[in-house]
Amino acid sequence: MIRMANPKTQKLKARLPRGFVDRSASDIRATEEMVARIRAVYELYGFDPVETPMFEYTDCLGKFLPDTDRPNAGVFSVQDDDEQWMSLRYDLTAPLARHVAEHINDIQLPFRSYRAGWVFRNEKPGPGRFRQFMQFDADTVGAPGVQADAEMCMMMADTMEALGIQRGDYLIRVNNRKVLDGVLEAIGLAGDDNGERRLTVLRAMDKHDKFGSEGVRLLLGEGRKDESGDFTKGAGLSETAIEAILEILDASAIDDLIDYSNDFTFKTAALSKFAINQHFQEGFAELKLISDLVKASGYMSDRISIDPSVVRGLEYYTGPVYEAELLFDVTNEKGEVVQFGSVGGGGRYDGLVKRFTGRDVPATGFSIGVSRLMTALKNLGKLGQEEVLEPVLVTVMDGDGEALARYQQMTQTLRAAGIRAEMYQGNWKKFGNQLKYADKRGCPLAIIQGSDERAAGEVQIKDLIEGKRLAGEIADNVTWRESRPAQVTVAEADLVDAVGRLLESQAEDRRRQIEG
Amino acid sequence: MIRMANPKTQKLKARLPRGFVDRSASDIRATEEMVARIRAVYELYGFDPVETPMFEYTDCLGKFLPDTDRPNAGVFSVQDDDEQWMSLRYDLTAPLARHVAEHINDIQLPFRSYRAGWVFRNEKPGPGRFRQFMQFDADTVGAPGVQADAEMCMMMADTMEALGIQRGDYLIRVNNRKVLDGVLEAIGLAGDDNGERRLTVLRAMDKHDKFGSEGVRLLLGEGRKDESGDFTKGAGLSETAIEAILEILDASAIDDLIDYSNDFTFKTAALSKFAINQHFQEGFAELKLISDLVKASGYMSDRISIDPSVVRGLEYYTGPVYEAELLFDVTNEKGEVVQFGSVGGGGRYDGLVKRFTGRDVPATGFSIGVSRLMTALKNLGKLGQEEVLEPVLVTVMDGDGEALARYQQMTQTLRAAGIRAEMYQGNWKKFGNQLKYADKRGCPLAIIQGSDERAAGEVQIKDLIEGKRLAGEIADNVTWRESRPAQVTVAEADLVDAVGRLLESQAEDRRRQIEG
Repeated sequence: MIRMANPKTQKLKARLPRGFVDRSASDIRATEEMVARIRAVYELYGFDPVETPMFEYTDCLGKFLPDTDRPNAGVFSVQDDDEQWMSLRYDLTAPLARHVAEHINDIQLPFRSYRAGWVFRNEKPGPGRFRQFMQFDADTVGAPGVQADAEMCMMMADTMEALGIQRGDYLIRVNNRKVLDGVLEAIGLAGDDNGERRLTVLRAMDKHDKFGSEGVRLLLGEGRKDESGDFTKGAGLSETAIEAILEILDASAIDDLIDYSNDFTFKTAALSKFAINQHFQEGFAELKLISDLVKASGYMSDRISIDPSVVRGLEYYTGPVYEAELLFDVTNEKGEVVQFGSVGGGGRYDGLVKRFTGRDVPATGFSIGVSRLMTALKNLGKLGQEEVLEPVLVTVMDGDGEALARYQQMTQTLRAAGIRAEMYQGNWKKFGNQLKYADKRGCPLAIIQGSDERAAGEVQIKDLIEGKRLAGEIADNVTWRESRPAQVTVAEADLVDAVGRLLESQAEDRRRQIEG
Repeated sequence: MIRMANPKTQKLKARLPRGFVDRSASDIRATEEMVARIRAVYELYGFDPVETPMFEYTDCLGKFLPDTDRPNAGVFSVQDDDEQWMSLRYDLTAPLARHVAEHINDIQLPFRSYRAGWVFRNEKPGPGRFRQFMQFDADTVGAPGVQADAEMCMMMADTMEALGIQRGDYLIRVNNRKVLDGVLEAIGLAGDDNGERRLTVLRAMDKHDKFGSEGVRLLLGEGRKDESGDFTKGAGLSETAIEAILEILDASAIDDLIDYSNDFTFKTAALSKFAINQHFQEGFAELKLISDLVKASGYMSDRISIDPSVVRGLEYYTGPVYEAELLFDVTNEKGEVVQFGSVGGGGRYDGLVKRFTGRDVPATGFSIGVSRLMTALKNLGKLGQEEVLEPVLVTVMDGDGEALARYQQMTQTLRAAGIRAEMYQGNWKKFGNQLKYADKRGCPLAIIQGSDERAAGEVQIKDLIEGKRLAGEIADNVTWRESRPAQVTVAEADLVDAVGRLLESQAEDRRRQIEG
């Protein structure tokens, strides 16, 4: 379709590309508050900030997106002058691997770093699904032992609590890719030839939250037709294999599934048909060590739980994977009450840096979905509680140079005293518009000086909050305190003091209202 | 050129596209500190945060880049699924205009907002010239009078001082595009036919800082050949016109150039040959009002100066333009001592929102170049002074599960007490590497517990700062205080207290060193 400008008006239509949004003051302030609290936890754990730019060479990023059904899709790419392709980063992990590899001789390993930043996905947007969103990552590179993964899980738990999420309202769930490898080997999908089928199985398992056991059963078997009639071909597994996998997905803790002592044995019917192969053995042993470590530090299974149903879609994980879930209920866009679910996760990616350096550089890290977590915290009333006082409005009664200079000077005097203030910058001639503006903006006070006040060296201060309250007095029957006058006249020299006193008395009112 | 992977190793080369850089911890921390201080000033002035995404539809951005010699160049663009072109924003002003136009019925005008964000230029990178950099903007939309421009200039001056830049080390220089229009009309370049030539003249004037008077003389005349031999065609102006323009560019304040009382008259020889046309008249009157307003609020010409040589390259300015300059000397990449120069600027853009809405929405705003200003402030020693304490290192002497749990638990105990701490996550078997790591990382203390200490219920705390000092003692002849022991052994239960005491005594040393 060719879009033509309307020849009559030739006006451009102001609109954003799909999947991109503007951010409001309250969302920005809530995000800043949240990011600051997360950062404080990461710093306490010994992590330092390091950032990479939005662009990377496409080959450096690799193709590790969960949805790699469409090769070369999923990312925004442009070709540079020298014909090399570059792409906007789709996560913060692949760029970190590039950064470490590029500076491997200067970086002191183990290397603890964190970063918050925008990432981009060239995908079909949907409700709560954007093409630009913010992640906040922490990684330890050069850490071969799963004690580093255990630490990440504790840091995620501490982060949730630092954000005001109560114990019991979140859970860090931990699994190990080696356990999943054990499953795949047990059901006969080991070996290089089965790479594609293994991925199909992992992707099917990862859909458990979305489609439930019956949906995954179809995806592991013949295939699944979705509501729109689109058919997804299944992995074609045997009934025994499917049952074993579903036992894993339906378990909510490892104790349901296996005897988790030193000699691991399966407890459930379908899994018991398979032997504990070496992948299982290693994976279970690592999970047990993680479990022991976090418990020794006081992180019990109400905070960090070993859960074999965690998959994590990304292809590059090689060991422990972990996920932070919020357990409280919310109503989704279809009106259904559901658990809020995952707000972040990560895992061990021992092979990502090796792609560049050729030598082993084991690493582990996780990512928090900032916008998603912010939504959750706002729902919980945990953010945006910090008071932002709107500015005092200095109104303009006269637009000649001398008068403007006077109003401007009053404004600057208030600001110099640390009082948030502004002079009205619209068309001053309609005074009613100025008060309407102050009202809509929520200004606490308006300063007025007409020619009479000017002659007397005075200013009027209108208490806009008190004025509103007085107007609603009869209906509200508010009697717990005496009214202030809604308007006072003071000497120009007393402006700052009088404004300070009025703002303080408004603040006192707010405190009493919260307490009352 | 086709790049082929080395068939022997198949290793990827870790590298960034030209013009993009990673950011170090100290740069990130310095930027955060700076942005927080700037934000505090903007908030005091009544501005609130609003942000837009990185992408806009290309037609919404418009072509307002200073260097529009190459149409469609200068920006990074991709074509969306629906064939519409979208581009990464090249500044924060065009997206703000789109935002305001899109929400014009919900936004209360005048609308004061600020935003810090990354912008992108698809240009040839050079020293200090990146393809991704950060700007910090403030804008008032719906403000018809130049009192809004005056306020912006005061806010820029306050921002410089809030960043610790001394009065006298910065200057806000103000001009008016209407004055430049007056010049262009006076020299016969008015009218629609001369649009291209007018731009050539403005661009030439804007190069005054870079090429000096002689360079600009060539660009206004026949043209200029640069060091590489590239020839830039000139504007072909007459000698009289060139002289008049150079008088303007060489003036450092408006008083040098015109009698700046109510009836404006030119003081200099070449300009005196031209009449004061209406553009001049309006432009001078607006500048005079700005000058009166800022002086009435105590911002004298050592902070805000009316300077007719300011041009500002962007095409969309329609009235006052202003620029923040740092006046102190630095050595540039060629080894020359030069004034640091511009760190930000802006102006009035009354037509940008109108492109969408069809009705006048006058606006003014400015942009601070964050990375550039950060470099300046670091040179001045005004940033990065806040102490970041590196973590206490809990070393690992034994890698079995029980021992790891113990070390991890010590680490968590320190963190729970608010002490930045980490357990060593590299290969624990080489203990020397752990102390080397602590040293390179600048850890203040190392915690050590071998099997003997374990049996006795004790831990060793190594004071790594004191250890270094003692090692350098004889050479430094530091005598102003007694040495602490470089290593102490304490009961495990006293770990937190002992670490706290040692960190405090190190902090006391640092304070005395600064004072001494």
